[in-house]
Amino acid sequence: MSLPRIAIDAMGGDEGVRVMVSGAALARHRHENFRFLLVGDQDRIKRALDDHPGLASASEILHCEDVVGGDEKPTQALRRAKTTSMGLAINAVKAGDAGAAVSAGNTGALMAMSKLALRTMPGIDRPALAALLPTLEEHDVIMLDLGANTECDARNLVQFAIMGAAYSRIVEGSGAPRVRLLNIGTEEIKGTDQVQEAAVMLRAARGLAMAFDGFVEADQINRGNVDVVVSDGFSGNIALKAIEGSARFVTDLLKNAFRSSLRSKFGFLVSRPATELLRHHLDPNNHNGAVFLGLNGVVVKSHGSANEKGVANAVAVAARLVEAKLTERIASDLAELGEANLRQAAKAAHKDAT
Amino acid sequence: MSLPRIAIDAMGGDEGVRVMVSGAALARHRHENFRFLLVGDQDRIKRALDDHPGLASASEILHCEDVVGGDEKPTQALRRAKTTSMGLAINAVKAGDAGAAVSAGNTGALMAMSKLALRTMPGIDRPALAALLPTLEEHDVIMLDLGANTECDARNLVQFAIMGAAYSRIVEGSGAPRVRLLNIGTEEIKGTDQVQEAAVMLRAARGLAMAFDGFVEADQINRGNVDVVVSDGFSGNIALKAIEGSARFVTDLLKNAFRSSLRSKFGFLVSRPATELLRHHLDPNNHNGAVFLGLNGVVVKSHGSANEKGVANAVAVAARLVEAKLTERIASDLAELGEANLRQAAKAAHKDAT
Repeated sequence: MSLPRIAIDAMGGDEGVRVMVSGAALARHRHENFRFLLVGDQDRIKRALDDHPGLASASEILHCEDVVGGDEKPTQALRRAKTTSMGLAINAVKAGDAGAAVSAGNTGALMAMSKLALRTMPGIDRPALAALLPTLEEHDVIMLDLGANTECDARNLVQFAIMGAAYSRIVEGSGAPRVRLLNIGTEEIKGTDQVQEAAVMLRAARGLAMAFDGFVEADQINRGNVDVVVSDGFSGNIALKAIEGSARFVTDLLKNAFRSSLRSKFGFLVSRPATELLRHHLDPNNHNGAVFLGLNGVVVKSHGSANEKGVANAVAVAARLVEAKLTERIASDLAELGEANLRQAAKAAHKDAT
Repeated sequence: MSLPRIAIDAMGGDEGVRVMVSGAALARHRHENFRFLLVGDQDRIKRALDDHPGLASASEILHCEDVVGGDEKPTQALRRAKTTSMGLAINAVKAGDAGAAVSAGNTGALMAMSKLALRTMPGIDRPALAALLPTLEEHDVIMLDLGANTECDARNLVQFAIMGAAYSRIVEGSGAPRVRLLNIGTEEIKGTDQVQEAAVMLRAARGLAMAFDGFVEADQINRGNVDVVVSDGFSGNIALKAIEGSARFVTDLLKNAFRSSLRSKFGFLVSRPATELLRHHLDPNNHNGAVFLGLNGVVVKSHGSANEKGVANAVAVAARLVEAKLTERIASDLAELGEANLRQAAKAAHKDAT
């Protein structure tokens, strides 16, 4: 392929074809060198493209009629990898017809299909779902795993740390991202055997392209003093949703307060900077686009309820990771680090545990 | 003992004797029928009592010089159960000299000492740490376990559900609290084996004094449509801290916005209802006082950084649970439910898993 191309599952998500196509058109303004493969119902995609001639000229359509259902079990969806818009978008990455795939469909199915088609990279046992979250500082924080793996051992967590650090170096441009393991305390004795062992391994390993600094508690995630927060998919998903729910709780309280005491237009005007700021910082569309790290190819999950700005962000995440050669970077980090070194670190962890 | 009495570890916490004594004095206004046993350095307690003659007349002092350190390992602290203010406060509960103990000291040490001195109730394998959190509705939500048990099996989770429901019936007065297990999705297939098995057991058990309704995701904790959220101590602690951190993140963003755009006094006045409301709803002091459920006696943990209003809330939690005979209630729920019934439910869970 001459120009990098992104495959878009045009059928996934709550909002359907129109928002996926508009989002891609919006993303194209920032990434003009990209082409797009729009996968799904040809007629509906064409109609949506009528409003976006620029995108139309940079896109091919791959027609299919089958769609993965939102409630479908991953095992069931897997059988239709060759006929669904989600499956075909992933297969385009596998075949080298696209550098990345973006879907707003069923997360479990997307994970299962991606894993089966793209396989995990050498040196990575399991892929992890990673996303960017806002902090009080200028930069974002990367969290992983956000739910791809309900249970993880120390080795998985170490691999997540390496992948998260590679992702952070791409988006923040920092040479040695500050990486921490999510835990219920910062003392060495806190937490599960898995996080303790992972900490020993990360401390013992030499040549890591990160500044590993032990544990972080969930109330520190947004403070801006850590670049990558590593956890198993169960606690990571719970932390992420707790953060989202709590932010919504506070803004709902605020809305009620403004509604009851600031009826005047003037009150509204005065309060606008605050609501604007909250909207900007907390709108999940601004941070849409979670990526499955550790696969032989880039797959980005857009939130099912994302609007066109959200989809554009997810597509931009994909474009950025393709441009920065994420997969190659993780592979080279792993090679640099060396399997022998990791085995050594594992031994250190084991000695420490006994 | 004629009047119910609460033992207070006067030495724990970041703020020391003065805040513990002032907090107890404040709590006494709401619970005038209670007496207090103030444990710690006699001279300092007496000086603090000079400002609170009402409390002084309702208190005895138990002098000791030894204090559990904030960073001390629980195993180390355990050896000084007979000499430290924390240990002696708990021992007063064990000896029947007090109905409850309140401490703002080292959580791990408090847990270890309480468990050793008071033992878990018959039918309960492990105690759990429970706290009240605000919701969008009038009522609070109870969360447990918040960190007493890093790892839990299905049986532990079922017991936590029973204890949490008993606590909820006391504070909310509802006959059948809505109880849910914290999970990363609401579908039956989601989550760890432990939460899935616990759900099967809770669905199968008859005679539960609760309305068990499956799973809840962390973004729904504050919405007000669940009364008790049950989890292992690792995810529960992470959810709690993520909620606290995110609320602080949003209010910090807001403060920055008001500071930069609303310099005028008028702007401040207009924004005051919002900040007042946030202060009221989100001030952790208003929700201070986590209780160890499942012990033969009530032990309440006050946050180390709580102010006197916070300490007063923790003491009020203790008073309320003594008055409502929490321990007896949990025991009777367990008896009502019957060990045979729980075994039956466990069998159902096992059958379902295979």
